[in-house]
Amino acid sequence: MMNKGLLFVISGPSGTGKGTICDELLKNENNNLFLSISATTREKRKDETEGVTYYYKTIDEFKRMINNGELLEHAVYNGNYYGTLRKNVEQMLDEGKNVLLEIEPQGALNVKCNFPEAILMFVIPPSADELKNRLINRGRESEEQIEKRLNAAKWELEQACKYSHIFVNDNLDECVKEIEKIIKEENKNRNKVNELLKEWN
Amino acid sequence: MMNKGLLFVISGPSGTGKGTICDELLKNENNNLFLSISATTREKRKDETEGVTYYYKTIDEFKRMINNGELLEHAVYNGNYYGTLRKNVEQMLDEGKNVLLEIEPQGALNVKCNFPEAILMFVIPPSADELKNRLINRGRESEEQIEKRLNAAKWELEQACKYSHIFVNDNLDECVKEIEKIIKEENKNRNKVNELLKEWN
Repeated sequence: MMNKGLLFVISGPSGTGKGTICDELLKNENNNLFLSISATTREKRKDETEGVTYYYKTIDEFKRMINNGELLEHAVYNGNYYGTLRKNVEQMLDEGKNVLLEIEPQGALNVKCNFPEAILMFVIPPSADELKNRLINRGRESEEQIEKRLNAAKWELEQACKYSHIFVNDNLDECVKEIEKIIKEENKNRNKVNELLKEWN
Repeated sequence: MMNKGLLFVISGPSGTGKGTICDELLKNENNNLFLSISATTREKRKDETEGVTYYYKTIDEFKRMINNGELLEHAVYNGNYYGTLRKNVEQMLDEGKNVLLEIEPQGALNVKCNFPEAILMFVIPPSADELKNRLINRGRESEEQIEKRLNAAKWELEQACKYSHIFVNDNLDECVKEIEKIIKEENKNRNKVNELLKEWN
């Protein structure tokens, strides 16, 4: 019988490079890692497809899903709701796929509450200065916004101890390799538990 | 400044050898690992000392501590209450000591709820047969009791995925070394986070 996949959540302060890390992890087929498609109340753009880029929902539908516990986590950006569908994730896991969620620290801890089997991974920058430099070099935001991100990063770092695994993103390649080692180990260990459980049936 | 210690919780089904593993971990000074002294309503024996073997409490005192949230977990064996004092653990952590709790799976998950920074480690046997053999060879229990333990083990194994780290106790020395590696890594990673946080202050 095929083994179930595992749910990996990657989080960390803005500017730690978690987006780039996720891109690298998804590229490596050995990780058997796939993104879950989110639901959103944002309007569908011309080049987007229902069920491929997002699942498009009305605000009423989205609120109903929240109340029914159909979402592992959700957040609001620019007035639009975004969330992860539990059914969607469970289906992928049943198909034997590892699922990757890249979410902000607050959402990540919600996933753990709603889905205790999730493996939470936290990416930290090598130093506060390095984090600041990265935010400045991205050139996406004003000085005020960067200041806000740095203040938020403090709270976020204080939550790091609640995660299963912490990775320092000092060197992208090494950090990705470390995470891939954990993905492999977690699959190995949990498969071992599942094998054991079969002996009881 | 001294780094705070970390709280490690070791759990797993009866007969996985977690007691022996804990003895080995405590013996190795490099682990900087200490047991927390539990509170109990059991009567003090002649050779026991308050605050050394246990903190001895009346049932009323114990219930009050539960209601006040003073315990990280508690359980009842043979009609007596046993529990882990939050204050006690926090004091040891503040002194820079790593604290070890060896508890049953149900209690272990309670610790995580009450103390999210706890690092939960789960020890599993190499096979169901091996677990059965170990329980029989201990010679402590009747066949019926062993049957009960094996049934409980199934539920307990199903909880394994909620732990941060899973270890197969196939070979005691190797298993202890694996756990010691994690103790070291977790201390390194969390110290890194604390160093980072200091840059914000």
